[in-house]
Amino acid sequence: MNIAVYGGSGRMGTVFCDYAVKKGHSVFVIDKQTPKLNIPFYSRLEDVIPSVDTVVDFSSPQGLNEIIPTIERFHKPLVSGTTGIGNDVMTKLKEAGKIIPILYAPNFSMGITLIKILLKNIPQELLREFDIHIEEIHHKNKKDKPSGTAKMLGEILVNPEISSIRVGDERGIHKIYFYGEDEVIELSHRAVSRIIFARGALASAQSIINMPPGFYTMEALWTGKK
Amino acid sequence: MNIAVYGGSGRMGTVFCDYAVKKGHSVFVIDKQTPKLNIPFYSRLEDVIPSVDTVVDFSSPQGLNEIIPTIERFHKPLVSGTTGIGNDVMTKLKEAGKIIPILYAPNFSMGITLIKILLKNIPQELLREFDIHIEEIHHKNKKDKPSGTAKMLGEILVNPEISSIRVGDERGIHKIYFYGEDEVIELSHRAVSRIIFARGALASAQSIINMPPGFYTMEALWTGKK
Amino acid sequence: MNIAVYGGSGRMGTVFCDYAVKKGHSVFVIDKQTPKLNIPFYSRLEDVIPSVDTVVDFSSPQGLNEIIPTIERFHKPLVSGTTGIGNDVMTKLKEAGKIIPILYAPNFSMGITLIKILLKNIPQELLREFDIHIEEIHHKNKKDKPSGTAKMLGEILVNPEISSIRVGDERGIHKIYFYGEDEVIELSHRAVSRIIFARGALASAQSIINMPPGFYTMEALWTGKK
Amino acid sequence: MNIAVYGGSGRMGTVFCDYAVKKGHSVFVIDKQTPKLNIPFYSRLEDVIPSVDTVVDFSSPQGLNEIIPTIERFHKPLVSGTTGIGNDVMTKLKEAGKIIPILYAPNFSMGITLIKILLKNIPQELLREFDIHIEEIHHKNKKDKPSGTAKMLGEILVNPEISSIRVGDERGIHKIYFYGEDEVIELSHRAVSRIIFARGALASAQSIINMPPGFYTMEALWTGKK
Repeated sequence: MNIAVYGGSGRMGTVFCDYAVKKGHSVFVIDKQTPKLNIPFYSRLEDVIPSVDTVVDFSSPQGLNEIIPTIERFHKPLVSGTTGIGNDVMTKLKEAGKIIPILYAPNFSMGITLIKILLKNIPQELLREFDIHIEEIHHKNKKDKPSGTAKMLGEILVNPEISSIRVGDERGIHKIYFYGEDEVIELSHRAVSRIIFARGALASAQSIINMPPGFYTMEALWTGKK
Repeated sequence: MNIAVYGGSGRMGTVFCDYAVKKGHSVFVIDKQTPKLNIPFYSRLEDVIPSVDTVVDFSSPQGLNEIIPTIERFHKPLVSGTTGIGNDVMTKLKEAGKIIPILYAPNFSMGITLIKILLKNIPQELLREFDIHIEEIHHKNKKDKPSGTAKMLGEILVNPEISSIRVGDERGIHKIYFYGEDEVIELSHRAVSRIIFARGALASAQSIINMPPGFYTMEALWTGKK
Repeated sequence: MNIAVYGGSGRMGTVFCDYAVKKGHSVFVIDKQTPKLNIPFYSRLEDVIPSVDTVVDFSSPQGLNEIIPTIERFHKPLVSGTTGIGNDVMTKLKEAGKIIPILYAPNFSMGITLIKILLKNIPQELLREFDIHIEEIHHKNKKDKPSGTAKMLGEILVNPEISSIRVGDERGIHKIYFYGEDEVIELSHRAVSRIIFARGALASAQSIINMPPGFYTMEALWTGKK
Repeated sequence: MNIAVYGGSGRMGTVFCDYAVKKGHSVFVIDKQTPKLNIPFYSRLEDVIPSVDTVVDFSSPQGLNEIIPTIERFHKPLVSGTTGIGNDVMTKLKEAGKIIPILYAPNFSMGITLIKILLKNIPQELLREFDIHIEEIHHKNKKDKPSGTAKMLGEILVNPEISSIRVGDERGIHKIYFYGEDEVIELSHRAVSRIIFARGALASAQSIINMPPGFYTMEALWTGKK
């Protein structure tokens, strides 16, 4: 694919560009700052959008807001991982989803997406038969407690207790215990690096270019439902 | 509930009766042998079926075959855990399911049922993004390798490799690894005792008495689908 | 072996007697209450001590105090799991250890004993290279938090943080994380039933009858050091 | 420290130099090839050895053989991770250990060192009470089965069965199960990157410069015994 990466010089943008290039894709960075990697670099999305298959955005709420009209005008699929966007930008994204496929994902991990899909598919009657507890383990410098992902998983599961462990340099473990009587299910996710977000964004970009217009979440994209 | 337990003096029947009595239910054993527990005991199902809410069967393929007409005549829900039944008995069970609710379950564990439901709900597109491996750990005296449960889980997951560990007195661990790039999901089930089968059978009996006629598996019963 | 079990009708005494009988030993209960099991039963230790190989005590601090002179007089090895004893009884036990082998163990688990031996053998210089965290998981009805075992393990490890999880009917998991840079060691113990205490007491009784006089802990007995 | 890294342009040498520089040490590469990193670079050890605190070797059996006389002449501590050396080089290393401190380590991981120390300290009598099994999990491209580390751990434990799982991109998990009756201990090590070898080599280099002459293994260095 030919991919325009808006915000491609930032931390996550850099990880994404590096990963996509290694996987054989042509990447074009649009950013104010020169990218750390040796990658074609433009300051305006308009300069490169006609020749790309999709636009990937790792910029800022303001940056994302600014490019929506361009995306719409050129009818290119958009994959955005920008967090912290307000209702106004969200509304514009959903509007754009009426004419082009839009994927909005605060977390691109394929593993976390799979876990969310699994949890949402547990029948309520069966869920009630188990006592549930969430545990998350992260490195000592992680300030928020519990992690955003743990809270999000908890919301799917009618808010069980969450234990947070801060130790060493752990990249991130999330574990859900389901205790029945004399049996226990554990469902855990362990992250090794930020590569998981780059990979999820790339695989989703490859998937979305064949989708009809729509506003998609990761779960929707990967379950084939809007 | 009032429960008739056909085959209630056998190994699994005894565990079930003990469990159901402790949970406050009235249990009536129908068997040739006197039950080990101090429980009302009859030799013919007809003697007790009019006064029970449901019939639970832990007998044998032949035993199950013999009671199907009685079950039909008295219109009582049936919960059967008898394994190794042939096509002829299966056909009769499905016929009976047209007029009464029938639950047939070679494994009553609520945990294994939950795992089967989870695995069947993974979208194929997403599943392909992971490399999968099944591991099962059982005590040294377990002869079959891999376990029947591991094989059954493997069939849902397009037959990944299965590793079998035989060590100590482990009651039974099943673990499924889903490796993505730089991330891994583990989904495991650990059994502590046979209580899990008694509990699953009892909870299912409580659930099935309110269901419309039908032939149900554990997954069907607990997902609310036939 | 022929074993006198002082306090053999209590909760832990009953588990021990049942286990020892199954393993082929001859057991004699000394208690005020009739034992639940069908086992020879005496009200005074003197009535049976001449014919036993060892005395196992699961009574009370007062009960233990009362039998020390008898033990000394008959020169029989003593294995005591009575908790909550004061300094006076402890002093008497240590005195008795000068003429007979005495094992005093607030926790008879062979697994916990192995973990204590492992932890005590970690060189301080190496231990400093790891960030340590203890986690313990127990059923929801367990009141004390953290568990006594977790606290005891913490004391060996210069008191790392301890996380306590209370969920379902978990019998007891203790886990110690040692995080280095880009590597982690986990050392965990999982208990399935009270059998572990019966087994540890029985194996220790078999071991102590060949030991020279001394006051032993589980670690001392199993490392061959006093 | 000032560190001469013999073979510093190779794969492991590069990881080590990068790590040591980040930790604030002055590193001098001695190699035939220019290092990938921007680090002072010499072709002969003699050019730089007078001004360093220690020599770290990640070269080849032949390379190691060639520098032993220089190390001896300048009386500098040596830390070598070169694998596959023959008896002749080993004999020379041990000879050199009579006048300077020498650390020879085929695996520098602090975690694996800790596990080896733990296992070697288990009393044989206690070990016999457990049924042991080793499991190792590595990425699909790892050819040797079981891993060298698993075999080495097995030798310490009187050769239990070893299960090898090859799945995804797992960097390396080693797990030892100790099954007692109704209890189980798990001791596991998980590696995240090659950093663990760089870190172990650096920490050992810092430790060895204060040691008396001797031929040390990792266990010996970190237990304070030769």
